[in-house]
Amino acid sequence: MAQNIYDQPEFFMGYSKLPRSIHGLGGAPEWPAIQELLPPLAGRRVVDLGCGFGWFARWATEQGAASVLGLDLSQRMIERAKAETGHPAIEYRIADLEHLELPKASFDLAYSSLVFHYIEDFDRLAKTVHHAIVRNGHFVFSIEHPIYMAAEQPGWLDDGSGRMTWPVRRYAAEGPRRTDWLARDVLKYHRTIGTTLNALIGAGFTIRHVQEWAPTAGQVAASPALAEELERPMILLVACQR
Amino acid sequence: MAQNIYDQPEFFMGYSKLPRSIHGLGGAPEWPAIQELLPPLAGRRVVDLGCGFGWFARWATEQGAASVLGLDLSQRMIERAKAETGHPAIEYRIADLEHLELPKASFDLAYSSLVFHYIEDFDRLAKTVHHAIVRNGHFVFSIEHPIYMAAEQPGWLDDGSGRMTWPVRRYAAEGPRRTDWLARDVLKYHRTIGTTLNALIGAGFTIRHVQEWAPTAGQVAASPALAEELERPMILLVACQR
Repeated sequence: MAQNIYDQPEFFMGYSKLPRSIHGLGGAPEWPAIQELLPPLAGRRVVDLGCGFGWFARWATEQGAASVLGLDLSQRMIERAKAETGHPAIEYRIADLEHLELPKASFDLAYSSLVFHYIEDFDRLAKTVHHAIVRNGHFVFSIEHPIYMAAEQPGWLDDGSGRMTWPVRRYAAEGPRRTDWLARDVLKYHRTIGTTLNALIGAGFTIRHVQEWAPTAGQVAASPALAEELERPMILLVACQR
Repeated sequence: MAQNIYDQPEFFMGYSKLPRSIHGLGGAPEWPAIQELLPPLAGRRVVDLGCGFGWFARWATEQGAASVLGLDLSQRMIERAKAETGHPAIEYRIADLEHLELPKASFDLAYSSLVFHYIEDFDRLAKTVHHAIVRNGHFVFSIEHPIYMAAEQPGWLDDGSGRMTWPVRRYAAEGPRRTDWLARDVLKYHRTIGTTLNALIGAGFTIRHVQEWAPTAGQVAASPALAEELERPMILLVACQR
């Protein structure tokens, strides 16, 4: 099963202090770009793969979603999500996406935010989601960008000119990467963009949009620290359709 | 119009000495991967965008292609291609892909090898190709990978540990890049993978395969210098269909 790093007290505490954990969707600078990729949700059945604190689930019901199923490996996440949610159309469940089973054609949208880089078998997951959504249904997700993940320990380098550059290494060597982020030895799986897209195409999806997320000029003006996201992408956004 | 670097004597002479110029398709290590993306060519009408010395055009007729139109901006390239070709089904023409016009639904396959990074307006070109190929027709091409292109002067960096890493910088800043390769001040246009794919999707294509090319273990064993291509991708392969 996937490494349950989110239930480790140290990681959970660090995660709870991230802007996106405190402020929700608005604390994630890629959220406006993701919103543009989402279909209208009124009356739709939604599954959120790796729902965390349930911010997206609650937002989806505010948009009129008929139901939201939020799945997360972490018991702490699910407990917190339940504690913050009172909407009867939202259900939370503990689930390991590595071995996920979902009923056939039972969702109009599958959504996931920054979770799939923890998944080893993305081929299987893409097929599972394809099976679970209706014809013309949508699958919209973000994942850590492989440029960000390829080198063992992500971090800026001085290239000798005083300018900071991002090191890429072992890009073609797909597989596990162990990094220190909020806790030691967090296990992620590096895949090229091509491999991710080909898994979706192989599962039967049509690719609708691929975006190597970068902040807008307005976002950088408001939050100058975001400027480094212009230098190398950290997040990949994908929208596809059954 | 696109910069006609290939007609500069210094560049042309350097280009003529590359393994892929001397040995043809077999001199390009990505060729076996491209071949797997091509449809059967027997009886098909092919257009080669940036045909160079005509290696692909001649190969296509060997596969039984009914006709091949080879287009290149460079008069020297076209002269050389004509001099080396005697097949009546192959026609070569000087053309600027930046302002290309092609007749409607007149090709079964559009092919291009390592040319589109010289093109500023890829949106227009994608629409032109979509217009020119038949329904279910194929569009298969290679382009310089944006990881390779993003930083101003591509080159390996020592990250301080003695290991060489590839620097990524200004990835989100799409647009011109001037580099020295075979000649000084070669003008190319950096685009993210997302932008390239979204241009194809916007033109009406369905993405079939995306491959950030890397050599096989067998290729690295035979040509150890190829090992650096495992560290960072230089070539992006895309197959799509109308």
